[in-house]
Amino acid sequence: MIASEFDRHRQEFPSLDDKVFFNFGGQGPLPRAALDAIVDAYDKIQREGPFGESVNAWLQEQSALTRQAIAAELGTSAAAIALTENVTAGCNIALWGTHWQAGDRVLLTDCEHPGIIAAVQEISARFGVAIDVCSVLDTLNDGDPVVTIARGLQDKTRMVVLSHLLWNTGQVLPLAAISALCRDRGVRVMVDAAQSVGSLPLDLDAIGADYYAFTGHKWLCGPAGVGGLFVRPEILSELSPTFIGWRGITIDRGGQPTGWQPDSRRYELATSAYPQYIGLSAAIATHNRWGTPAERYARICDLSEHLWERLSELGGLRCLRSRPPEAGLVSFQLESGKHARLVRSLENDGFFLRTIAHPDCVRACTHYLTREDEIDRLVEAIGKRL
Amino acid sequence: MIASEFDRHRQEFPSLDDKVFFNFGGQGPLPRAALDAIVDAYDKIQREGPFGESVNAWLQEQSALTRQAIAAELGTSAAAIALTENVTAGCNIALWGTHWQAGDRVLLTDCEHPGIIAAVQEISARFGVAIDVCSVLDTLNDGDPVVTIARGLQDKTRMVVLSHLLWNTGQVLPLAAISALCRDRGVRVMVDAAQSVGSLPLDLDAIGADYYAFTGHKWLCGPAGVGGLFVRPEILSELSPTFIGWRGITIDRGGQPTGWQPDSRRYELATSAYPQYIGLSAAIATHNRWGTPAERYARICDLSEHLWERLSELGGLRCLRSRPPEAGLVSFQLESGKHARLVRSLENDGFFLRTIAHPDCVRACTHYLTREDEIDRLVEAIGKRL
Repeated sequence: MIASEFDRHRQEFPSLDDKVFFNFGGQGPLPRAALDAIVDAYDKIQREGPFGESVNAWLQEQSALTRQAIAAELGTSAAAIALTENVTAGCNIALWGTHWQAGDRVLLTDCEHPGIIAAVQEISARFGVAIDVCSVLDTLNDGDPVVTIARGLQDKTRMVVLSHLLWNTGQVLPLAAISALCRDRGVRVMVDAAQSVGSLPLDLDAIGADYYAFTGHKWLCGPAGVGGLFVRPEILSELSPTFIGWRGITIDRGGQPTGWQPDSRRYELATSAYPQYIGLSAAIATHNRWGTPAERYARICDLSEHLWERLSELGGLRCLRSRPPEAGLVSFQLESGKHARLVRSLENDGFFLRTIAHPDCVRACTHYLTREDEIDRLVEAIGKRL
Repeated sequence: MIASEFDRHRQEFPSLDDKVFFNFGGQGPLPRAALDAIVDAYDKIQREGPFGESVNAWLQEQSALTRQAIAAELGTSAAAIALTENVTAGCNIALWGTHWQAGDRVLLTDCEHPGIIAAVQEISARFGVAIDVCSVLDTLNDGDPVVTIARGLQDKTRMVVLSHLLWNTGQVLPLAAISALCRDRGVRVMVDAAQSVGSLPLDLDAIGADYYAFTGHKWLCGPAGVGGLFVRPEILSELSPTFIGWRGITIDRGGQPTGWQPDSRRYELATSAYPQYIGLSAAIATHNRWGTPAERYARICDLSEHLWERLSELGGLRCLRSRPPEAGLVSFQLESGKHARLVRSLENDGFFLRTIAHPDCVRACTHYLTREDEIDRLVEAIGKRL
């Protein structure tokens, strides 16, 4: 049998060979090209001389290329991108760089990641900022999240913290409309983009969100330890760097700090796992050899709809959504409630999913790399365990 | 010729084979075992399933082993160690986790890294904290840095920020005495340990410093992108986490934050380049196959004294120190002042050193891995260029 173009492309991700993988929202499989690029970079650094002027200049060039590759995926310019260790760091840069006043309010949705909730709670404790929570969970199947956000805004609301693609229910929030609403009210929008980058086609310059924090190791299938933050260039001077190091500053001939880098690099800190930057660039390039982001997203949705339909046919479980998913995340609840047991049992047989605590459910992710027969095998394996 | 035990050990660092390396204070050469461990970890993660329960549990175990390996090097317990991306992140955790009040003062030495100076300047701007600077540079050859620090302390001084081993002049500050002095005055001591970890034998529990931020990629020869912060356990509750993520918090069954991890892990953020953690553990284990930290330090000092002596014999340059170095850093100035040209010319011939902006000089680093004949070759190469 002749392998199709798709099968050949999928072979670039060796981890997918011998397992049935639905954990893309946790961590994506690393393409061969990314691991090769990482190892090649380590070899080059060691061969040419760690911290040599030649190697350091090359690492600067490679970092610039990684920002460019990311910016192209996000629909913005490289100058708007700061490289960070992970999505959480990006969120914290936006949260702590805001000059909070006692009495300010921040509006969170009820579907945010616990790490981000905890960061907002610490902001609240330090600066006397009040936290409001609005329920977008209630709009999963009915209602309009823009209306929910609008109702949650108060006179003193300074920032809205939300996810573009909700990590628990898979709902896509209408970010352009929310951003426009908030812009009108003088409210900043800080987006946890952990699930959206690499799965949704993006045009950040058009969307208009203020801060957009993401990671490379989920849907982009890059190595863990590289992410970034988009800061809308028009408000760069408004957001102060908080954690500060040599990468974010300029210095004079005497080695004394003189100011910030002119773009979002001001939020970058210090020495990172640079070979991983190059690995992320290679992962992005690998995806771009298979269609456009819009084409990959269309395939993701076809596959998640298929998974959602097949799961909906099973007795003993309920998909959280009453309509087909808007992206690659499909969450469902067992009548038995024994979600952890299901996930563990499936992993023992080579099926990779995860549990979510709030709402209590199991999450399966389809990427454009998923095959239909994997979905059928997964549904069969779940059915056997109900 | 039969390779000596030392030669065989040195072969574990392939980068040293074909160059004359004096950049250990910039970035150390990665041992073969560290790169192998990194590649093996990537392979294992991909083979067993990214983000699977099995892989995630293994990464937690490996992270704990890395904290333990670091703690053993630093003379403290693993519970005191937070893993960070780099030394700068560790410094920022200590700086921003302190509850500054307007009018507080911070005392910096005049030999700190520009990234740290910039972070302190931002603290000053945000919270109305005054910055005092004391000159330990003046005590390099004469005088007592403890007296200098003592004179710099004022009634409202809240924290002293200094390096244990100064990155520019190579001076070792008497940290135990400074810490005792500051403890008596109710002043916290935040240490930039970029140059001391992996070169000085350390007993942090005896030294008594409050915060000790370090990196694994310089004298420990680990991969770039892994460092850490020691927080003295007695003052853990005093230092609030600032950048916050899922690794630092505890959550309830509903996925809501309930508090901090019980130890220094509370300062850890989110997904990191975990294979690099394992690479750092492997690098530390490699060093420990060649003597004790005290024995390695003694060899470092023997070699740096040899380099200092040989350089001091040359006309046309002056070592900053008038006595032999206290560690592996040897800084010198050319009469011509053309430091950048010298470093570039040497790198072209396979000799790796760096320039320093303040004071304007060239820095050469000897590690225990350095051979005497490399020192002789370096001095000859410098002599030819004077």
